[in-house]
Amino acid sequence: MAEQHTKTRNGLDLEQMVQTIDALKQDPSLAQFEFRARNQWINGGTNRSTIKDFYGAGSEDASRQEPFVFTNGEPPVLLGNNEGANPVEYLLHALAGCVTTTTVLHAAARGIAIKSLSTDLTGTMDLQGLLALHDNATVGYKEIRIDMDIEADCSDEELDELLAFARDHSPVCNTVCRPVPVTVKRVKTKQEAA
Amino acid sequence: MAEQHTKTRNGLDLEQMVQTIDALKQDPSLAQFEFRARNQWINGGTNRSTIKDFYGAGSEDASRQEPFVFTNGEPPVLLGNNEGANPVEYLLHALAGCVTTTTVLHAAARGIAIKSLSTDLTGTMDLQGLLALHDNATVGYKEIRIDMDIEADCSDEELDELLAFARDHSPVCNTVCRPVPVTVKRVKTKQEAA
Repeated sequence: MAEQHTKTRNGLDLEQMVQTIDALKQDPSLAQFEFRARNQWINGGTNRSTIKDFYGAGSEDASRQEPFVFTNGEPPVLLGNNEGANPVEYLLHALAGCVTTTTVLHAAARGIAIKSLSTDLTGTMDLQGLLALHDNATVGYKEIRIDMDIEADCSDEELDELLAFARDHSPVCNTVCRPVPVTVKRVKTKQEAA
Repeated sequence: MAEQHTKTRNGLDLEQMVQTIDALKQDPSLAQFEFRARNQWINGGTNRSTIKDFYGAGSEDASRQEPFVFTNGEPPVLLGNNEGANPVEYLLHALAGCVTTTTVLHAAARGIAIKSLSTDLTGTMDLQGLLALHDNATVGYKEIRIDMDIEADCSDEELDELLAFARDHSPVCNTVCRPVPVTVKRVKTKQEAA
């Protein structure tokens, strides 16, 4: 039993976790990742992404046989027919998942066992920004609140410290909190018709 | 035929679009939206979001009978088993969809008919940030590149201007480009056990 307890924590393989961290410490180039998505417009506010390959740990990943496929849509009030969640809702899903996984990972590294963890996210937005109705309207989320209900085998003080650390080290949270440069470039991937 | 052509553009109902914009101009409070996601940790790097309700256009939306459900996972190299795309990949999907829909929307408003539109996204990340291996490692995406292949019934100059405008008015793109405040608060939603 004792051996089983040390093998995984919060569902993470502790030996693999330590090996991964040691490998990245030895060779920081292994920590350089490139993630990718390909998206195809369908019609109106509907479009679809396929996500499969990425580069990381020094090579192209080959673990996925099939791509993940996600459809963006819009509700009727935003001129769609609920073909899928909309992009700003997918962003909340990404943020929820990243803060959760970062919390679980660093809890495991600290020896904290998490019993349960759920989050409620709320993001506020003024659509006058998207529609360019006012120059001074904020485009995108004004703020995002995450309410986290977490139970673990540690004190409330340790939990609060863990949550603050996870917020500061979550890649998606930081991509939202920090200004991250996004460039849009027009390219021709198809052959021109004669 | 002429009437049909004026009814929709790029799959968007032009009459509904004009009515929506006029309504928001009359009453800017209708442009205030609140989007939401609820996420439940499952195990390790796996967690699941449900997305259904939101507030906008002056009331709670009631158009969705069932929630959208999305699962975050991690590839083996990141201690998972590809239970789903990972959060930073979902963020790329959100960004692709938002830039695309913003382009399609403002093209419709300008009278530009889009024939095809696809995007390839690439985001670079140093995982030393997530793992807190270096204080000076950037946490989250360092930069995100969007290559867009778009065909439309306008000049290249009009396309370039449209793309720059879409980039500046895409809610997800601005949430990434700007610093957006994210707060994490610990709450108790469940009854405490006696």
